[in-house]
Formats: sequence, C-alpha cells, structure tokens
Amino acid sequence: MPQNVRFEIPFVTPVSPHLAAARERHLRWVWNAGLVRSEAAFKEYESWDLAQAAARTYPHAGATDMVTLMNWFSLAFLFDDQFDTGKPDRSDRIAEVARELIVTPLRPAGTPPRVECPITLAWAEVWEQLADGMSLAWRGRFAASWGRFLVAHTEEIDLAARGVTLGSAAYRAFRRRTVGIHHSIDAGERSRRFEVPAQVQSHPTMIGLRDMAADTIGFMNDIHSLEREQRRGDGHNLVSVLRDERGGSWADAIDEAVRITEACLRKYLRLEAHVPAMCDELGLDDAQRDRVRMGVEAIRHWINGNYEWALNTGRYAAAKDTPAAAAEQQGRGSLDDLLAV
Amino acid sequence: MPQNVRFEIPFVTPVSPHLAAARERHLRWVWNAGLVRSEAAFKEYESWDLAQAAARTYPHAGATDMVTLMNWFSLAFLFDDQFDTGKPDRSDRIAEVARELIVTPLRPAGTPPRVECPITLAWAEVWEQLADGMSLAWRGRFAASWGRFLVAHTEEIDLAARGVTLGSAAYRAFRRRTVGIHHSIDAGERSRRFEVPAQVQSHPTMIGLRDMAADTIGFMNDIHSLEREQRRGDGHNLVSVLRDERGGSWADAIDEAVRITEACLRKYLRLEAHVPAMCDELGLDDAQRDRVRMGVEAIRHWINGNYEWALNTGRYAAAKDTPAAAAEQQGRGSLDDLLAV
Repeated sequence: MPQNVRFEIPFVTPVSPHLAAARERHLRWVWNAGLVRSEAAFKEYESWDLAQAAARTYPHAGATDMVTLMNWFSLAFLFDDQFDTGKPDRSDRIAEVARELIVTPLRPAGTPPRVECPITLAWAEVWEQLADGMSLAWRGRFAASWGRFLVAHTEEIDLAARGVTLGSAAYRAFRRRTVGIHHSIDAGERSRRFEVPAQVQSHPTMIGLRDMAADTIGFMNDIHSLEREQRRGDGHNLVSVLRDERGGSWADAIDEAVRITEACLRKYLRLEAHVPAMCDELGLDDAQRDRVRMGVEAIRHWINGNYEWALNTGRYAAAKDTPAAAAEQQGRGSLDDLLAV
Repeated sequence: MPQNVRFEIPFVTPVSPHLAAARERHLRWVWNAGLVRSEAAFKEYESWDLAQAAARTYPHAGATDMVTLMNWFSLAFLFDDQFDTGKPDRSDRIAEVARELIVTPLRPAGTPPRVECPITLAWAEVWEQLADGMSLAWRGRFAASWGRFLVAHTEEIDLAARGVTLGSAAYRAFRRRTVGIHHSIDAGERSRRFEVPAQVQSHPTMIGLRDMAADTIGFMNDIHSLEREQRRGDGHNLVSVLRDERGGSWADAIDEAVRITEACLRKYLRLEAHVPAMCDELGLDDAQRDRVRMGVEAIRHWINGNYEWALNTGRYAAAKDTPAAAAEQQGRGSLDDLLAV
C-alpha cells in the first residue's frame, strides 16, 4: 500500500522528449559497463525504469546529456544496493569504494580511478561528461554535495552493520544527508547548462529551499519504498523509526510520516514565495533572475519528477516474485557484486 | 644556495603577536597528539618552525585559533613526508589515509575518523575547530580545495613510486594542484572570521589571483627546498624538471626557475590592480568591498609570509647533519611512521 500513497503537489513538471531513445542507449551502456551481469539482474534493473526518473527530474537535458544522467543514476542506485545485511564485514569495502567515488570529481576530469570496480569505472566516465563546461565553483559545490551524501551513506552502512537504529529526531537530521538531493539539484544546472549565481546559492532562502526539498523527497521515498525496505531488513526509514518510537500499527506510522512529509512540502512552498524578495535583496539583474528561476525549477523537477516516478517504479513494488526479491529476502542487497575488481 | 635566493615582493605583511605563546602550546600538542614520537623527530620538527609559518600566513588569527592553525600545519607537513622512496608499496596506505583526510570535512564536524592513525585523528580534531562558525558554502569550498590538493598529492606519490618525471609544461599544471595554496587561502577567511562574497570567489579576477599566488608560492618553494628534495631523491621540483629538460648546470636551471617565478609574481600584481574594477562590476557595497580587501590580504599574507619563513626554516637547510637528514639520505621520508594504527 505505501507505494500508492498520494501527495498533493501544487505544480506540474515536464518529461523529457528524449526518454524513449535515451532509455535504449542507456540500457545498452549499463550492460556494457558491467553494471548488470545476469539476465535476472537486467530484468530487475529494467523494471526500476531509472530512465524515467532521469527524464522527469532533468526534463530539459539534451539527447546525449539525458543518457549521461541516466547512466549516472544507474551507478548511484546500484551502488546503494551493494550492502548485504548478511555480510556486515562488506562495509569496509563499501567505505573504500565510497571514498573513491568522492575523490573522482576532485581529480582532473578524465583521470582513471585508483580503486577499480565497475561502479568506480562507470563514475569516472560519467563525471567527465558531467563536468563538461561547468565552472570551478560548480564543480567544487557538486563535489562537496556528492561527498557529503556518500559519507552519510557509509555511516548508514556502519549503523546497519552494528544493528543500530536511530530515534526520529536523529533520523530526520541524518536522512537529509543520506537522501542525496543536494548534488541531484546541483546536477540540474548541468542538465540545462546554466549556473545559479553563487551569491544565491549562499543565501538562506536558497539553502532552505534545498533542505526542505531534501526532507520532502527523502520522506516521500521512505513511504513509497517501505515494502522494499522491509523485505531487505532495512530499518533506515521514517515509517519504521516512528513505529519503533511510538508503537502502534504500521498504518498509524504511515499516517504520521505522511503528515510530516506534507509539513515539509508546505514549508518548501512558503520559502519559494520569498524568492523574489531574495532577488531584490541581492540586487540581481534580469539575466541573473532567469538563472534563479531555472534553479528553482530544478528543485521542482526533483520534487515532482521523483514523486511521479516512485508511484510506478518496479523498484518499490510491494508484491514481487522475482529473483531480486528472493535475494533481498535472503539478506542480499543485489544480484550482482559490483565492488569486486 | 637556493634557500638564500631572494625575491622582490613589493608589499610587507605582519606577523602574529601570538607567535611565541602559541608556539609553546602548539609544540606540546604535537607531542601529545603523537605526531612526533622521538627526541630526534621533535628536534627536527622544532627546527622547521612551522609556528612561524602560521604566524606569518595568518597574522590576524586570535590566540587560540593561532594554535589551531599551527596544529593543522603540523599534520599537513608531516603527512607530506610520509612517503619513503625506499618503500614504494607504501603508496596504497598513503592514498587510503589521504582519502580519509579528504572525507573528514564532509562529515558533521566532530565525527571521529573511520581510518585511524595519528594524522587522521589530529585532522578530525583540527577540522572541528576550523569549521566553527563558517558557512556551508565556505566549508564546501574548503573541502573541495583541500580534496583537490590531497588527490594531487596521491598522484605525486604514485608518479614517484613509478619513477615517472614530468616535462616542464605538465609539471607547471601539476604543481598548481600539489602546492596546496587554494585551501590555505580559504583558511585565511577562517583565521579572521570573515568570508569573501561568493560571487567574488567565482569571478575570473579572484580565480586568477588565487592561481597566480599558487604558482608563485609553489615555484618559490621549489627553489628554496631544492637541496632538501635532492637529499630526498625527489625530482618533483621546477629546478630539477628544467635541468632534466634543457640540460645545462644547476645554476642555469635555478636562474630559469627564478625568472619563471618572477613572471608569475608580476602577473599576480597586474591582476591585483583589477580588483576595484571587479568590485564595481559586481556592484558590491562598502561592507562587501571590505571583505574583498581582507580576501586579497589573505593571499598577500601567504605569498610574503611563506617567503619570509622559507628563508630561515631549518626544513630547507642545505647543510644538515641531523638524524632527519641521515634518514632522508637513506630514502626514508620521515623519522616517525604516522600512518600506522
């Protein structure tokens, strides 16, 4: 049921016209890059339709950039699944690969990885394309956002390996870092080849918009992916945290999670209303205001695009009778090991 | 002789009034943190007088911040020396520790390191103090600058382990990344508790000033440290690169390196003259211009402060008859192993 939970998002966002063509090129790339290695894993991967996620969250990317963004999604999502609850000692290898992924955007674009596996090789290739044409400031900002996310991901794995669960206040602060929205919004600038003025990125209104989008999306994801995460034995989910903390039924916990998520979305919308005042305060000219508008659109694309995708992706399906679901129930994170050399 | 090479720097910079008191506190900290572990190593470390370097490059830091900055210098310089030409397989451990150092500023300040050794433990402690009161934008910028430097440092070790030497064009591009000036200038903001406006940091004039300062300081360092690096068998030095490429005497190569360095300094000074036009173009108010002035001063403090320190530090002394010099001649980078658990 959680995958069917509906939210009222008071704006619509477009879908890339390149979806179908880019999806085909992307699926070939995923196979050739060794990111899926068996027919079962390929079918599972296809059912997630990350191509649709990218086409909804980066609707204005060009045809080739669209494929690049899909390729990026694949390695990020597949890396996310590499932790096996049955093999907690794998956390050291995951941390090692995560550190290598963090370091890639700090090297000159095109440098081969120093820790080699399908995930790091794919990322070095994708990063070279993502960095193309972007300023030093953007590359630094992306690298810091991406790095913070991957560090938090390692922390999450460490907590899972030690069997630690968080209270809801600690969880909410932590979730903002594990959701990985800040770098995803940064990538929105690359997808349309523009940059939000630097002084806007440092302004409390824009920082607040990004944080509220991260919370909204993170909690929506928690609700929509609840059944998958239960199957995987993953307690890092707002619904599970609330139920552990307050007792009561799963339905009660879901209702409470929905209320929290809606409050984050309302706060996001209230902040959006402050954008014109922020532009006045910073004395922006028309061209700069246009870049701010596109920056806010990039956040909206993420909130609504991710929501629309989550409602119908096979990744979060409740009733699954596939090799991937069977592997998950056995405590295996994924069908393929993508961290081996 | 190279340590005595003089440059004409057309500005003077102050020295912190806290030097003597902070030095004492700093030396105690270095010992307690296990960053020097023997009397010989302590004497060698003391002779470098990094406390003076910090007091010259961050002259406006408060009394306690001055100690923090000295502590930071110690772990950075001591890490730099951990590579032994006699043990090239040590490069993997160095890369691992470097990645951990990169990751530290991406975690919430105060998080303990995941890869433990005296260097990473010291850095987690220092970073918590450096991050204090600084914006997300500054912390992200510092993390990216620091990360780029450490990644380049790993590359340098990899090249040395493989016995590769670069031509002068490749060397000059590489040197800008290994010198570690960008994050050092970023730290100047923390030392006076201010921030350069974000739009200024993205402006070509400020980017150029930072790059030219990096080149000037890197090449001055190469000239002043030549004898130490010859003793260590380290060919990653502008003078050595020029001599390898052009033949001729060491004196010729030093003269040419001096000419290149002077040209960088002239270019830096020409760019400084564009700062008022940059402020006009960005429409900065008086308070913002004041932060730009302090930002430029932070660069000057580094150019001149580092120069004054280099002329008299024992680190670069030509004639040395100490356990450290003997270790260097045997291909050992340092007296103590600081990367072990």
